[in-house]
Amino acid sequence: MGQKLRVTVWNEFRHEKESERIRSVYPQGIHTAIGEGLGADVEVAYATLDDPEHGLSEERLNSTDVLIWWGHKAHDQVQDAIVDRVQQRVLQGMGLIVLHSGHFSKVFKRLMGTGCDLKWREADEKERIWVVAPNHPIVEGIGEYIELPEEEMYGEHFDIPAPDELVMVSWFEGGEVFRSGCTFHRGQGKIFYFRPGHEAYPTYYNEQIRRVIRNAAYWAAPTTREYPTYGNHKPLETIKAKG
Amino acid sequence: MGQKLRVTVWNEFRHEKESERIRSVYPQGIHTAIGEGLGADVEVAYATLDDPEHGLSEERLNSTDVLIWWGHKAHDQVQDAIVDRVQQRVLQGMGLIVLHSGHFSKVFKRLMGTGCDLKWREADEKERIWVVAPNHPIVEGIGEYIELPEEEMYGEHFDIPAPDELVMVSWFEGGEVFRSGCTFHRGQGKIFYFRPGHEAYPTYYNEQIRRVIRNAAYWAAPTTREYPTYGNHKPLETIKAKG
Amino acid sequence: MGQKLRVTVWNEFRHEKESERIRSVYPQGIHTAIGEGLGADVEVAYATLDDPEHGLSEERLNSTDVLIWWGHKAHDQVQDAIVDRVQQRVLQGMGLIVLHSGHFSKVFKRLMGTGCDLKWREADEKERIWVVAPNHPIVEGIGEYIELPEEEMYGEHFDIPAPDELVMVSWFEGGEVFRSGCTFHRGQGKIFYFRPGHEAYPTYYNEQIRRVIRNAAYWAAPTTREYPTYGNHKPLETIKAKG
Amino acid sequence: MGQKLRVTVWNEFRHEKESERIRSVYPQGIHTAIGEGLGADVEVAYATLDDPEHGLSEERLNSTDVLIWWGHKAHDQVQDAIVDRVQQRVLQGMGLIVLHSGHFSKVFKRLMGTGCDLKWREADEKERIWVVAPNHPIVEGIGEYIELPEEEMYGEHFDIPAPDELVMVSWFEGGEVFRSGCTFHRGQGKIFYFRPGHEAYPTYYNEQIRRVIRNAAYWAAPTTREYPTYGNHKPLETIKAKG
Repeated sequence: MGQKLRVTVWNEFRHEKESERIRSVYPQGIHTAIGEGLGADVEVAYATLDDPEHGLSEERLNSTDVLIWWGHKAHDQVQDAIVDRVQQRVLQGMGLIVLHSGHFSKVFKRLMGTGCDLKWREADEKERIWVVAPNHPIVEGIGEYIELPEEEMYGEHFDIPAPDELVMVSWFEGGEVFRSGCTFHRGQGKIFYFRPGHEAYPTYYNEQIRRVIRNAAYWAAPTTREYPTYGNHKPLETIKAKG
Repeated sequence: MGQKLRVTVWNEFRHEKESERIRSVYPQGIHTAIGEGLGADVEVAYATLDDPEHGLSEERLNSTDVLIWWGHKAHDQVQDAIVDRVQQRVLQGMGLIVLHSGHFSKVFKRLMGTGCDLKWREADEKERIWVVAPNHPIVEGIGEYIELPEEEMYGEHFDIPAPDELVMVSWFEGGEVFRSGCTFHRGQGKIFYFRPGHEAYPTYYNEQIRRVIRNAAYWAAPTTREYPTYGNHKPLETIKAKG
Repeated sequence: MGQKLRVTVWNEFRHEKESERIRSVYPQGIHTAIGEGLGADVEVAYATLDDPEHGLSEERLNSTDVLIWWGHKAHDQVQDAIVDRVQQRVLQGMGLIVLHSGHFSKVFKRLMGTGCDLKWREADEKERIWVVAPNHPIVEGIGEYIELPEEEMYGEHFDIPAPDELVMVSWFEGGEVFRSGCTFHRGQGKIFYFRPGHEAYPTYYNEQIRRVIRNAAYWAAPTTREYPTYGNHKPLETIKAKG
Repeated sequence: MGQKLRVTVWNEFRHEKESERIRSVYPQGIHTAIGEGLGADVEVAYATLDDPEHGLSEERLNSTDVLIWWGHKAHDQVQDAIVDRVQQRVLQGMGLIVLHSGHFSKVFKRLMGTGCDLKWREADEKERIWVVAPNHPIVEGIGEYIELPEEEMYGEHFDIPAPDELVMVSWFEGGEVFRSGCTFHRGQGKIFYFRPGHEAYPTYYNEQIRRVIRNAAYWAAPTTREYPTYGNHKPLETIKAKG
């Protein structure tokens, strides 16, 4: 890749405005913490729900290699036209990283085709994210597990299609498991769902979590080749006349 | 299974009404040919686009184990409310077999999350459908390949998620290949996409094709168990107080 | 299936002979407890390590639809010629269910091609086996999870190929997770690995565990069709002369 | 990757010595043509069957990131100890690209666990290799298909485990199809099987074929992280005393 990877971090950005407690964790917004974790080699842009077109204009998306999505309480305020646009860009090759409560975003549900529901609980409990696909580039530099002292619980069944690759599985103190790191291929695009990141905890400052997201951004970068042709197609070989 | 498998065959049923040529191939409609191929052990019902609610009332879907879908020229006339209903029933466990041009149906695109586009050509050309997953129950009793003397061509790239199981791959006389038999798991439901069946050819009278569809109907039958619970979930273990 | 499913349960059968404690759990051997759990509709045979040819003669294997394998402390005493024979029968269509410590059997390692290693611990700890593929026939009739009050722990990383279908994931009291229910397709055969069943616990009397094994036996039954042909193959189409 | 990718190309290197016709196609051996196709950014080493230890000493393998394997007529002359060594290195993270007739090599069969058999025919026929996973890094820069005017035919059923990712499917003039580009994850290692490359044709001079192999070498490069720990594992959480 001759130039820098261009990542746009999208954040709903409501919790941080509305709750002093959340703002104390992420004073500049979750998106900023995520963006800073990507490191200096990545060209980062930000977009939020309350921006015009939710910050996701055609121009912005066309100059985005990988889109990171964090949303939670206002999924229904994302306009369908923007959902269509993001879906089309993914199918045309833009990478997509969906974080935590983004499992219920319109964008993710649209691309999965399923309900994307799950069990959840807010109980300040311990999460241990185990690597089950140790050779995957998304876990480069990551140990056998990542331990988070306090997180929201997400539990199975997680109503997604079987992931193309299951990279990580979470253990929760309260007794559940969860498929926490999942890849999906859709059209020309690559999608990574990564579970951790409840707004009340400083998860996106964790160096291992940041490493996974950074790895995933590089993994999800578009593959450069001509877009496939569809529709009526002339034969490449002579077809015998029948009759 | 103590009782008969209940299959509803849905057909757009427009080609047969509008074209004498197509009617000569399927005088009672494509749905009838498909339904007759399912054999006496299956309880078959029919539904078509021009029926009230497209023949897919809540009652009908609730008493359907597996829905077979054939549509082509009027995909856009299927009401979104019925698409929602079918999607929900699949996610709750109803099997779905999508045939041929059904690849572009709203129902299939909704469940796949992708464009579902492909290359195509009508040239009366030979298709040879090779089995690549020889131990799959969907190919029970099927030889190494099924040869169809004349079919419409569908060619790659087929814009679907990678199938959970790739069962059959087609060779076409004009030079293309196609992933012709694909399974997908979505929610509690099982989906099988099967390529052959252009309206102008007597494909659904072919005994091997009928055998595949019959096998697929049994394979796609609902798994009987309690529906998973979602949402807020009490801990199963004691969570240590922090702080 | 016109006739009964024929299942052979293979047990190393050493722990029960050598340890009074284990014998008190499985007085007739683990194999008998597994076989009884299969129910009256299944035709069960038994084979153990100390039988001639380990009980796995050509005749026995040729009349076996599904082989269940439990071994632990004497994997290296299984003769390579018998391992070859079992592998060939699986590739030709016999189903195989590998239980618990069978992960390290020669048969399983041969069919996987990997080391099949894992973490383990004997600490009488709680295991909760969560269903993650809720529509799979192997979990028909099974609740959201199976809870075992005391089991040996197996933890990730489990060094297997990515399973074709991941059906269940275990949570352990001591902090680990494990891919506990995994399907694999190899040749004409279907393989299911199922984690629970340490010799010191009465796991194979648990009704839910028995149900999973019974479901898996039906799922792994051979698909009936002609064996594929391999080797030199005459063209099905005319090849143009070049040059 | 701070340093050059280190690729070792292994060739049986018998056809070229024994047949003037083959030597006229690959005067310096198939390995040299493959190695030259990898480009200047890759550090290439060569190893052949008749070298001591087949050129695959511990030292050589330990300094190899990705091993490329071409063999055909002398698979049985590869010593089992070297097969063990290569398998272990793959499980520890070395990438492996198996080309064409290498499908029947001891190394590939060992890692697959299946027979790896297929249909074949030498008839100077046309092959068209279609891309079915258009977003995979292995097809970066590759068009919709690669056309080879003359190749050996390989046909389904190909007796391999279902690939983790199916990247390419071949069409053959004589009427068959074949899964030609397949990825597999085994242990810490990544494996790519790529079909084309019969010794009698100049396939490894084709720029598109070279591009695929080069892409695959980068894709198969080891993921850098600590090797997982296996065996007895102390609890990470307190286990309640029972009884």
